[in-house]
Amino acid sequence: MQGAILVLSGPSGAGKSTIINHASDEIGEYYFSISTTTREPREGEKNGVDYYFVTHAQFEEGIKAGDFLEYATVHGNYYGTSLKPVNSALEEGKLVIFDIDVQGHRLVRAKMGDYVTSAFITPPTLSELEKRLYARATDDKSIIERRVKNAKEEIHALGEFDFIIINDEIPKASAQFATIANAARLKQNNEELEKFVKIWDN
Amino acid sequence: MQGAILVLSGPSGAGKSTIINHASDEIGEYYFSISTTTREPREGEKNGVDYYFVTHAQFEEGIKAGDFLEYATVHGNYYGTSLKPVNSALEEGKLVIFDIDVQGHRLVRAKMGDYVTSAFITPPTLSELEKRLYARATDDKSIIERRVKNAKEEIHALGEFDFIIINDEIPKASAQFATIANAARLKQNNEELEKFVKIWDN
Repeated sequence: MQGAILVLSGPSGAGKSTIINHASDEIGEYYFSISTTTREPREGEKNGVDYYFVTHAQFEEGIKAGDFLEYATVHGNYYGTSLKPVNSALEEGKLVIFDIDVQGHRLVRAKMGDYVTSAFITPPTLSELEKRLYARATDDKSIIERRVKNAKEEIHALGEFDFIIINDEIPKASAQFATIANAARLKQNNEELEKFVKIWDN
Repeated sequence: MQGAILVLSGPSGAGKSTIINHASDEIGEYYFSISTTTREPREGEKNGVDYYFVTHAQFEEGIKAGDFLEYATVHGNYYGTSLKPVNSALEEGKLVIFDIDVQGHRLVRAKMGDYVTSAFITPPTLSELEKRLYARATDDKSIIERRVKNAKEEIHALGEFDFIIINDEIPKASAQFATIANAARLKQNNEELEKFVKIWDN
């Protein structure tokens, strides 16, 4: 398989979607991995766009069948990444972008490490994160407090990532993201390397 | 220190210098590490440009004093990289580019791994390498044979590098090199990461 994986992690409110949209002209074609979840769709969320919404029983069947590249439970709901669309995209040589948490990053790296480049996207400070979460006013206070608490824990996993992007100014952060995404495409996985060495010395 | 290291390895004749020159407008300011050697200067070679030329005794004093980031003996001559100019360039936040062999890459990675991005540059096939070495006609047959033999061994270290650049067409290989060099600049070393986490949560 010739494709590559780019894992993006970072607190909710770090600006991941904004950065990806801003850079999308510079990074060429990619497949944005859609997660599967058992939680209820929120207003405006569409099946197959925001998430694949499934039942608890369906998700657990998937787990048993080995369908998930990674999964976790958060507040009683399952969240996971189906392996099949990822493998299809990789076989087409695409860059597959994941927006998952640090635990998801660990699992993807453990399974497909030679395909993975990863970046942690963060606001410059914790207080800036808090400010942004309150400013966008999409979550109520208890959810914001939980996000801030999660962020405080996740920041200590920074060293596990290949890159960090400090989202202070969007144009700068987007340019850095584009550079990282284009480098991620050049990463050679072990299967490709072995093929290359075989034809090289022949 | 805010700088970063980009190690380039690959057989003589792979086109490393051509690629660096071709990409130099796109990769911004960098410091190209100059090796120190005890071998005699060849015609046209200048001290401080091609190499730092020193005596055997001077080199061995440097080894004892811990002056070298990496060194090796090749056909009875010492070749090495002085740590001092590398550290100065890193402190100025520069990208430091090394053109060293796979053994040198191992040593630099062992000592300063968190600063290092590496790329192996190679012609598409061994026979293409041979063709290029005979075409440029700067070495006699025995030296070309030795270079080919070395290349056959070094290719098996491919998997140790972050990237490989297959130099089939110079513009394509140079563009890939520029992407990798710009990504290498974004790599955060552990010292910078720790500083960032400290100010982040304050």
